[in-house]
Amino acid sequence: MKKLINTPESVLSDALAGIAAMHPELRVDAANKTIVRADAPRPGKTALVSGGGSGHEPLHGGFVGPGMLDAACPGEIFTSPVPDQILAAARAVDSGNGVLFVVKNYTGDVMNFQLAADIATDEGIGVRTVLVNDDVAVRDSTWTAGRRGTGATVFVEKIAGALAERGADLDKVAELAERVNAASRSFAIALTACTTPAAGRPGFELPGDEIEIGVGIHGEPGRSREKLRSARELAEIALGAILADRSPEPGEQAIVLVNGLGGTPLIELYIMAAEVAAILSRHEVPIAANLVGNYVTSLDMAGVSISLCHADTEMLDLWAAPVATPALRWGC
Amino acid sequence: MKKLINTPESVLSDALAGIAAMHPELRVDAANKTIVRADAPRPGKTALVSGGGSGHEPLHGGFVGPGMLDAACPGEIFTSPVPDQILAAARAVDSGNGVLFVVKNYTGDVMNFQLAADIATDEGIGVRTVLVNDDVAVRDSTWTAGRRGTGATVFVEKIAGALAERGADLDKVAELAERVNAASRSFAIALTACTTPAAGRPGFELPGDEIEIGVGIHGEPGRSREKLRSARELAEIALGAILADRSPEPGEQAIVLVNGLGGTPLIELYIMAAEVAAILSRHEVPIAANLVGNYVTSLDMAGVSISLCHADTEMLDLWAAPVATPALRWGC
Repeated sequence: MKKLINTPESVLSDALAGIAAMHPELRVDAANKTIVRADAPRPGKTALVSGGGSGHEPLHGGFVGPGMLDAACPGEIFTSPVPDQILAAARAVDSGNGVLFVVKNYTGDVMNFQLAADIATDEGIGVRTVLVNDDVAVRDSTWTAGRRGTGATVFVEKIAGALAERGADLDKVAELAERVNAASRSFAIALTACTTPAAGRPGFELPGDEIEIGVGIHGEPGRSREKLRSARELAEIALGAILADRSPEPGEQAIVLVNGLGGTPLIELYIMAAEVAAILSRHEVPIAANLVGNYVTSLDMAGVSISLCHADTEMLDLWAAPVATPALRWGC
Repeated sequence: MKKLINTPESVLSDALAGIAAMHPELRVDAANKTIVRADAPRPGKTALVSGGGSGHEPLHGGFVGPGMLDAACPGEIFTSPVPDQILAAARAVDSGNGVLFVVKNYTGDVMNFQLAADIATDEGIGVRTVLVNDDVAVRDSTWTAGRRGTGATVFVEKIAGALAERGADLDKVAELAERVNAASRSFAIALTACTTPAAGRPGFELPGDEIEIGVGIHGEPGRSREKLRSARELAEIALGAILADRSPEPGEQAIVLVNGLGGTPLIELYIMAAEVAAILSRHEVPIAANLVGNYVTSLDMAGVSISLCHADTEMLDLWAAPVATPALRWGC
């Protein structure tokens, strides 16, 4: 294993030190392992908190800032944050207007966020939770009951975050977050496995000419293992699964995320983006907005995920609203 | 070789199709292989054109837009753009106020940009060229006479681009670009080799526990091949070389780029960033601004480069000025 680390045990705390050093607009709590907007809690604002295992950067710490999350609580690599940590994040950002937990649907995350929500509620913090479960590849997996949460997390955090920034109350923000999740679908393809620092070797074996179709963001198995194909064929497989699961309704336009899993060069993501655009054009699905790059990664895994949000006009307006985070920044 | 491509021959044109589809604010000329600001030529504005081999994305196409480049001309993978292509970019953006060529110091690039400059001059286009040569690792290499151009390209394009956006003339923009380059230093470390689509296998062999200290962005050899070390030790090596070559002068502050070479997870880059910040603090070098992420890559190479610009107040002001490109965006 070759990684730019000090020790496998200190990966998260060392990375948090880097975020603290390079982002003075964020406040890193090294003891609780939280990343918080420096100006939190914001009076009158519904707060958004997300978290999950580390190894998916920039998710979630890279999405903390005006117009998106108020705090992130990263767990150890591929490990849910603990309830105390989630609770610390909620306490740090609640202004009395309540907190929305954005939780990717993995068993450990769901359980720990639920425990934290129960305690926070007992303390008088209003909490609502939205589960993100956009991955159409498989139902139930080694990590999940139901669908896994992946790229749509970016859509949910950006769009609901913008509504919260405009002053909407917790129920309205939660309701919109659920609508965004319901309108979003994802599908991923891995070319290589990823290596966690603790394990020191790839999480699964993938022969030199094979790929995993429908892989999860921790390397969970997908639908099938197949021979490598062209970018065009892979885009057809991914978008075929996505559009078969939910086709656009009248008035909707697509927000598209062509997401690298961590080890894939940007030039390959743009090749995939060209194929995605061609397929959507053929299906007469207009692309209103898009992101191409590494947003929800799986350490050093080579591969791509495609996410699509069938956005209505409110979602499109909120997507375009100002955001200022380490990983997403426009309009301010 | 496992890559998200259609054919090795069509990598650049397929990726350009993706940029065209996803960035309507840019104009892609598929025949000439140029990426141009959609609003170019801008009346009264000094234009900036850069280019070089592909495989370093987001450099340079990802830096086209208000506040940075007017056009980019990407060559084939690790291959200089041809003179006609550079000339097409210059013609597309010149408003009569002249064009600054930002050229990384590689033999092929220098020659082809010079040929293009000669023809452009004959056509009445004012051209000045700034050579970027910031890599302190080696003098002369398999690709270069003198120092290689790497991460400082981002500093030069951003800072000179901001001055051009404010209406400065060609000589002033060129003079500043030269000052930024002179104030910048870089050093890179590779953990793995990269694989070009045409070759289909890694460009060099690196045993499982060895790294290349001072590597170039095409995998050119560096200073030495050594056993893997901790992030802390690697940061010491890189910054030691950088600061030994040029220490800060009174009134200067650092702009720091902790740059992934394409295959390294962001969490590792933040670990390196923490070490870089600690070392600079010990040397009493204040960090005024920073970037952490993949900006000047080498396809799928795992590794990191550190770049440092000893910036004066004018450079810092221009660094902070609004920019709106696919890869750098703030303030607008």
